[in-house]
Amino acid sequence: MIVEIVTTGTELLLGQIINTNSAYMAEGLNNIGFDVLYQSTVGDNRVRMENVLAHALTRADIVITSGGLGPTQGDITKEVTAKLFNRELKLHEESLDRIKSHFKKIDRTMTDNNIRQAMIPVGAEAITNYAGTAPGVMLENEGKIIINLPGPPSEMKDMFDRSIKPFLKEKYGYKSVIISRILNTFGIGESSLEEQIKDLILAQKNPTLALLVRPSGVIIRITAKAEKAENARNLIAGMETEIRRRIGQYIYAVDDENMEDTVGAILKQKQLTIGCAESCTGGLLTSRLTDVAGSSAYVKGSIISYTNEVKSDELGVLRELLQTKGAVCEDVAKAMAEGIALKMHTDIGVGITGIAGPDGGTDEKPVGLVYIAVAGKNGTTIAKNVFSGKRKAIKYRTTQTALDMIRHYIEEM
Amino acid sequence: MIVEIVTTGTELLLGQIINTNSAYMAEGLNNIGFDVLYQSTVGDNRVRMENVLAHALTRADIVITSGGLGPTQGDITKEVTAKLFNRELKLHEESLDRIKSHFKKIDRTMTDNNIRQAMIPVGAEAITNYAGTAPGVMLENEGKIIINLPGPPSEMKDMFDRSIKPFLKEKYGYKSVIISRILNTFGIGESSLEEQIKDLILAQKNPTLALLVRPSGVIIRITAKAEKAENARNLIAGMETEIRRRIGQYIYAVDDENMEDTVGAILKQKQLTIGCAESCTGGLLTSRLTDVAGSSAYVKGSIISYTNEVKSDELGVLRELLQTKGAVCEDVAKAMAEGIALKMHTDIGVGITGIAGPDGGTDEKPVGLVYIAVAGKNGTTIAKNVFSGKRKAIKYRTTQTALDMIRHYIEEM
Repeated sequence: MIVEIVTTGTELLLGQIINTNSAYMAEGLNNIGFDVLYQSTVGDNRVRMENVLAHALTRADIVITSGGLGPTQGDITKEVTAKLFNRELKLHEESLDRIKSHFKKIDRTMTDNNIRQAMIPVGAEAITNYAGTAPGVMLENEGKIIINLPGPPSEMKDMFDRSIKPFLKEKYGYKSVIISRILNTFGIGESSLEEQIKDLILAQKNPTLALLVRPSGVIIRITAKAEKAENARNLIAGMETEIRRRIGQYIYAVDDENMEDTVGAILKQKQLTIGCAESCTGGLLTSRLTDVAGSSAYVKGSIISYTNEVKSDELGVLRELLQTKGAVCEDVAKAMAEGIALKMHTDIGVGITGIAGPDGGTDEKPVGLVYIAVAGKNGTTIAKNVFSGKRKAIKYRTTQTALDMIRHYIEEM
Repeated sequence: MIVEIVTTGTELLLGQIINTNSAYMAEGLNNIGFDVLYQSTVGDNRVRMENVLAHALTRADIVITSGGLGPTQGDITKEVTAKLFNRELKLHEESLDRIKSHFKKIDRTMTDNNIRQAMIPVGAEAITNYAGTAPGVMLENEGKIIINLPGPPSEMKDMFDRSIKPFLKEKYGYKSVIISRILNTFGIGESSLEEQIKDLILAQKNPTLALLVRPSGVIIRITAKAEKAENARNLIAGMETEIRRRIGQYIYAVDDENMEDTVGAILKQKQLTIGCAESCTGGLLTSRLTDVAGSSAYVKGSIISYTNEVKSDELGVLRELLQTKGAVCEDVAKAMAEGIALKMHTDIGVGITGIAGPDGGTDEKPVGLVYIAVAGKNGTTIAKNVFSGKRKAIKYRTTQTALDMIRHYIEEM
């Protein structure tokens, strides 16, 4: 069964709100085996909305709309749906009763325009709105289905999860499930990654493979379809094993887990503590480390040393070194990492010094130049990086790189 | 001129990412007087993408796509665009040079599939990608225009703002402008704010008013339409003056400016320096302060004191105090703020101690309890807060509140 999602509302066309409804419904539908092949957005205009819905019915079996069920003049989705199938609107008494008791409950007078919300096309089924007042609508016609859901995300989600998904599952008894698994990589570019697994991508059928670029690095999405969830998971596991065999060293986490989760888990498991000396990242690395619940088990303390004075006074970086080589160099990163570990009595010390820009760059030391050092009982590892992007992007990329360095360092401890 | 936005990518159809690109482009286009009447989304499938683009061209003058310009096999938007207009793809040497030098800069080998990114339809214009490698494409055909932009939001936004908006403005002029101005507030709830300006909201016509809740606080959007930008700005200015007269003390910034920009500007103007002692925020406050370009003029250094040991050793918080009252109390926040100012020799010291959760809360000291202190020559101000939400939300709300406290403190210096 092919589904098209149609979101309506002029505020979407004006870009005043971000459309989160389409993604929510698409994910839910995919999980129960429906193919969402198209998503469309149209404003509160009768002619254009009718054209968009008519076109959707030519290429999809099920059209789900969201938006335009409210009491105002701009709420026209049910009327347009009714007209498309040559139906009248009629009052749905039960819905009107619900609306009336809602107003009674909140102690307000129901204005007449609220009766509009209880009008549904003849022959349609009303879907109770447990999170609001406007009922949804389900209308079948010549083997096609149109479902009208409300626009407010909380109402749409409640109705979608409570009524629509079970209905579609029941009616079409889906034969298959679609499950995805994400492998999060770092340190390898999209094109190099593709080179390594090109044969798998070209031969993909089930599971399918996709590479997507994220600020955190490239992610590999493995998606399998099967009659049972267990079989889909087995298909994914086989593919994952082969991918890990080839580029496993770049995979730092799966699904929603991020780099700080992985680093935190290793630190906790190995009972290691950490402290950071941050210059250009301004605390972002420690902030990410402490985004993880339970991070007080391994984060002791950090120093953000934005001036040379703080670097020497607090971290013990030699003044001569700062004067002769400048704050942004390998030796300073090293001294910062070793200095913070000593000061905070931690197993791991991290030192970061660089130029986040937009000013302060020179030919020799351009914006984006960052030195990262990780110190511990296995010595000090230092890396030179040149990151591109704006100030905040450079800060983020630096922390992602630093976390990956920490990961490799502590994995070998 | 009617515009349709077509976003491409199977990840959108699967609901794995939320489509923020459509709203961004729609808002930008509306601001320069173009009507975005349709938005469509289609996956990385040649036939369906071609059908969607062909259909878009029947109802729009300008079709702007985003997504599918990268180096991999799934990146097909340029090919589909070329096929639609019966054109071949040819190598764009300048783009290839840019891609090559990018790989050189980041010190990686360019793989062959990257050449794909430099292929553009014959007769098309390449649009330089200053935020990434894949160039955009602009192709005119029989009075219609297709523009292909990259999918990653940072690249799309940069190219859209830098090249597409100026091009469209230049080429088609525009008869009216829509201008919005955002007033960013903090410290007042949506309903209280509405009460204060209810008469303005009810009487709104041009400019219009909207209240929107954001993690940073409630924002007030004033939108005016006029033939000339100057007239629209005058309409906005009149409304802004009246709003500021009523609730000016809550407005900390306008448009894209955020709290750290405002605080940074005041610190710079008054030539004050700052240092922070952060416990539960884990460095996020200093990271936000240093997100501002030029912040090295006022940020000297901070200490992230995640343990009691660091609080006493580095910030001089008395051990007895920590033992008797615990780390999360008014006196510790005060000692941290005063301690960091002393240690870093700054005009302003900030101390933050709290419980970010999800664990560590008690009946007396629940998750979300945070003390914030701001110290300086006018004494030390301390506030007790109980924030709701998850760990990261509590961290963010703490920093927003701290920045607002700093703002009020330094405004009076």
